[in-house]
Amino acid sequence: MVMPQALLEKSVDKRVSLLLKDGRILEGKLTGFDEYMNMVLEETTENNVSGGEERRLGAVVLRGNNVVSISIL
Amino acid sequence: MVMPQALLEKSVDKRVSLLLKDGRILEGKLTGFDEYMNMVLEETTENNVSGGEERRLGAVVLRGNNVVSISIL
Amino acid sequence: MVMPQALLEKSVDKRVSLLLKDGRILEGKLTGFDEYMNMVLEETTENNVSGGEERRLGAVVLRGNNVVSISIL
Amino acid sequence: MVMPQALLEKSVDKRVSLLLKDGRILEGKLTGFDEYMNMVLEETTENNVSGGEERRLGAVVLRGNNVVSISIL
Amino acid sequence: MVMPQALLEKSVDKRVSLLLKDGRILEGKLTGFDEYMNMVLEETTENNVSGGEERRLGAVVLRGNNVVSISIL
Amino acid sequence: MVMPQALLEKSVDKRVSLLLKDGRILEGKLTGFDEYMNMVLEETTENNVSGGEERRLGAVVLRGNNVVSISIL
Amino acid sequence: MVMPQALLEKSVDKRVSLLLKDGRILEGKLTGFDEYMNMVLEETTENNVSGGEERRLGAVVLRGNNVVSISIL
Repeated sequence: MVMPQALLEKSVDKRVSLLLKDGRILEGKLTGFDEYMNMVLEETTENNVSGGEERRLGAVVLRGNNVVSISIL
Repeated sequence: MVMPQALLEKSVDKRVSLLLKDGRILEGKLTGFDEYMNMVLEETTENNVSGGEERRLGAVVLRGNNVVSISIL
Repeated sequence: MVMPQALLEKSVDKRVSLLLKDGRILEGKLTGFDEYMNMVLEETTENNVSGGEERRLGAVVLRGNNVVSISIL
Repeated sequence: MVMPQALLEKSVDKRVSLLLKDGRILEGKLTGFDEYMNMVLEETTENNVSGGEERRLGAVVLRGNNVVSISIL
Repeated sequence: MVMPQALLEKSVDKRVSLLLKDGRILEGKLTGFDEYMNMVLEETTENNVSGGEERRLGAVVLRGNNVVSISIL
Repeated sequence: MVMPQALLEKSVDKRVSLLLKDGRILEGKLTGFDEYMNMVLEETTENNVSGGEERRLGAVVLRGNNVVSISIL
Repeated sequence: MVMPQALLEKSVDKRVSLLLKDGRILEGKLTGFDEYMNMVLEETTENNVSGGEERRLGAVVLRGNNVVSISIL
């Protein structure tokens, strides 16, 4: 069995794609997380699904309770 | 009586279909979960109900509080 | 006085109808539940109120915080 | 001072009207409740405000966090 | 400093106006409350903002997590 | 570092502007708050952004989980 | 690994951009935060995405559960 936190630990320093509750998708290097699934991403970009623009966000802290899913890229 | 966590335990390494709060449906192999019903899916695909496209998501961590239901396939 | 958990216990192996927060109605045999009102249904069908179609879902785990009410059939 | 739980206790076996978060109104005999305000109603009917139809639901367990208010009839 | 619970305590047996999350406004005599801000109102009326009608609700238990604010009248 | 609760403490008896989750903006004198950020305002007015009317609310208790932000005026 | 709280600590007295659940974006100097990710911003401005206006808010306390993400500028 692969525990969710264990997979996140293995994914530190890898690129991930985060889906947020409001539909935003952030891509970046996962550099940390805590037990509430608050996360730190670096070199983050926001890929808006509807439009084609990409926004560069740099270092970002995300609150866990807005995160729907984390895909390991 | 079948406890919810017991059924999930029996379903590890089986294919499941997850319904999320925002209406998305993910299908994949359940490889783990924790007491908050955070889950790990592998070989995940997103089956959008309205459109016909299927998106391949690979390994995904899902936060339990966005999960509505898990169907064992 | 009939405690909610006591009524659920008496309803194990009986058919119930679950109303979810998003308006879905699931019908199935209640085979288990836990203290968070997470539930296990078997032989589950989804009865969409607006349309006439019925979807067969088999064994389903439901997260308690998406459940509005449980009617004993 | 009348504590909320005390008024509910005094209302057991009386008819109450429950307003749910999604706007539904249920009427029935309150037969039990717990500390989360999960409730058991018997001889329950759903009175849809917009339409004139009344649905008979029988014995129902309601999750407290979907309940907005309980009026003693 | 006036603690929120202290102001509520001083307001017992006074008339208050409650604003609920769904926009409803209830007016009544506050007869009790608990640490979750669940409340008991008596001689309650619902003043719908949009329409002019007033509904008499009598004794009502309100769940604290649906209450936005309490104005002392 | 200025802790959030410390700034609130320094703001007691000062005028603040509260933004609520439903978009309402209340202005008043902050007379108290607790650890859940439940607050007491006095001489409160509601400034509706869209319309020009101002409503006088007097003494108000606000539940912390409906508060988005507090600006010190 | 960079814990979320550690990155916030390093960002005290730096300018940050906060995305709130309702879509507002606040920019200001982070002067403090607590374990719930409640935050204190100073010299805060609200940058409305849709319109071009900028509102000056000064010192602001934000409740953590309305914060989606914090970008370090």
